[in-house]
Amino acid sequence: MKRVKLTIAYDGTNYCGWQIQPNGITIEEVVNKALRKLTGENITVIGASRTDSGVHAMGNVAVFDTETTIPPERIAMAVNRILPEDIVVVKSEEVALDFHPRYCDCEKTYEYHIVNTRTLIPTKRLTNYFVSYELDIEKMRKGAAYLLGEHDFASFCNIKTDVENTVRTVKELEILKNNEEITIRISGNGFLYNMVRIIVGTLIRVGRGFYQPEQVKEILEAKNRKIAGVTAPPHGLMLMEIRYN
Amino acid sequence: MKRVKLTIAYDGTNYCGWQIQPNGITIEEVVNKALRKLTGENITVIGASRTDSGVHAMGNVAVFDTETTIPPERIAMAVNRILPEDIVVVKSEEVALDFHPRYCDCEKTYEYHIVNTRTLIPTKRLTNYFVSYELDIEKMRKGAAYLLGEHDFASFCNIKTDVENTVRTVKELEILKNNEEITIRISGNGFLYNMVRIIVGTLIRVGRGFYQPEQVKEILEAKNRKIAGVTAPPHGLMLMEIRYN
Repeated sequence: MKRVKLTIAYDGTNYCGWQIQPNGITIEEVVNKALRKLTGENITVIGASRTDSGVHAMGNVAVFDTETTIPPERIAMAVNRILPEDIVVVKSEEVALDFHPRYCDCEKTYEYHIVNTRTLIPTKRLTNYFVSYELDIEKMRKGAAYLLGEHDFASFCNIKTDVENTVRTVKELEILKNNEEITIRISGNGFLYNMVRIIVGTLIRVGRGFYQPEQVKEILEAKNRKIAGVTAPPHGLMLMEIRYN
Repeated sequence: MKRVKLTIAYDGTNYCGWQIQPNGITIEEVVNKALRKLTGENITVIGASRTDSGVHAMGNVAVFDTETTIPPERIAMAVNRILPEDIVVVKSEEVALDFHPRYCDCEKTYEYHIVNTRTLIPTKRLTNYFVSYELDIEKMRKGAAYLLGEHDFASFCNIKTDVENTVRTVKELEILKNNEEITIRISGNGFLYNMVRIIVGTLIRVGRGFYQPEQVKEILEAKNRKIAGVTAPPHGLMLMEIRYN
């Protein structure tokens, strides 16, 4: 038996997120079906990140155990022939049998993509959040700086989570601007439920001038979800990479 | 009566091109219906460019005549509330009653978007042509240089056209590279049927090393569609802008 790690890219538009659920088709389900067809085994993958409905990925990770004779590194190409066009296995490789994609020392990187224009660009509507109000990038950067490092991110976690420890470490939080495109890039050793999207929603409020940059520090210290900004919509979010140490 | 010019952006993925046809829904048809709903008049737009199925636009142009009391510059915002998300009127303005978007002195700019990677990126699959073979950009640029200026582009025109004069002027033909993204940007005073996509298909063959850059000159001089490269697929093409002089 081998454990195989898959690095998976997808367009989340047509899926109810990663995790199998009764009310709609999910990425996990489609990947399982394709692997079952490929191997003839009753495979169920274990995913690293349960991305929400509409969220995209360049590099989510999933593992599964198999007796297949297909070499692990060839599985990507073989399963891509079965998968629909909006899900692509970027890489497949053998890992140790005790490798678990969630209970592992890892660092995740997300990007949130904003287009700051008055008029929506149709071809970018499913992968970018369009903000028509002018955003002050320098203020957003000042506000973002307060979030770097280890903090209790309780203010940036939606209530429905069952996590008890809300302390996380944000290792990188960059705001890049390329003409009207703004990318918020954030890396850390773990994120609470909706944490990236609440951080983005809060920084957008800073950019619009509703909050002063210094208020981000107050919001963090309040440990109260109600005073942070709204959760930014899912379709601007992309899970870029998960690095295992 | 007023003549109103619309600048229209769209994601062509879900449409059978611009022009009304019996076998599927088209952008022209959806725009007509939205304007009829807005004005209560039996409006039929005249479009500038009949983009093919799957081709996108940042700035196609259409005009229509109306008695509406809505100020011309407000029509964009009003009709966008009726249009689906994948069609957006970027601008609306009054023009002279004799302005015709096709029989006019104008310059069009197209961009063709290629991603040169071995693995398809799902979120870019509907707006980029993925080429997995390595492309030599310098060779492509050398080949492209032969196409600049006024030439008979008969080799770059699909047979089904009914145009008799195949002389056109290419004013700009740039090949830009940003990491794995390649943009072929082309401007001219008019293009033959599939001309941009055949130029792109030919330049890709140059980039792959199947044609030497100098052969582009021979292909042009042959005035024979059969010796140029294949027509590149529609979804990489975007009509960027039409400038009227």
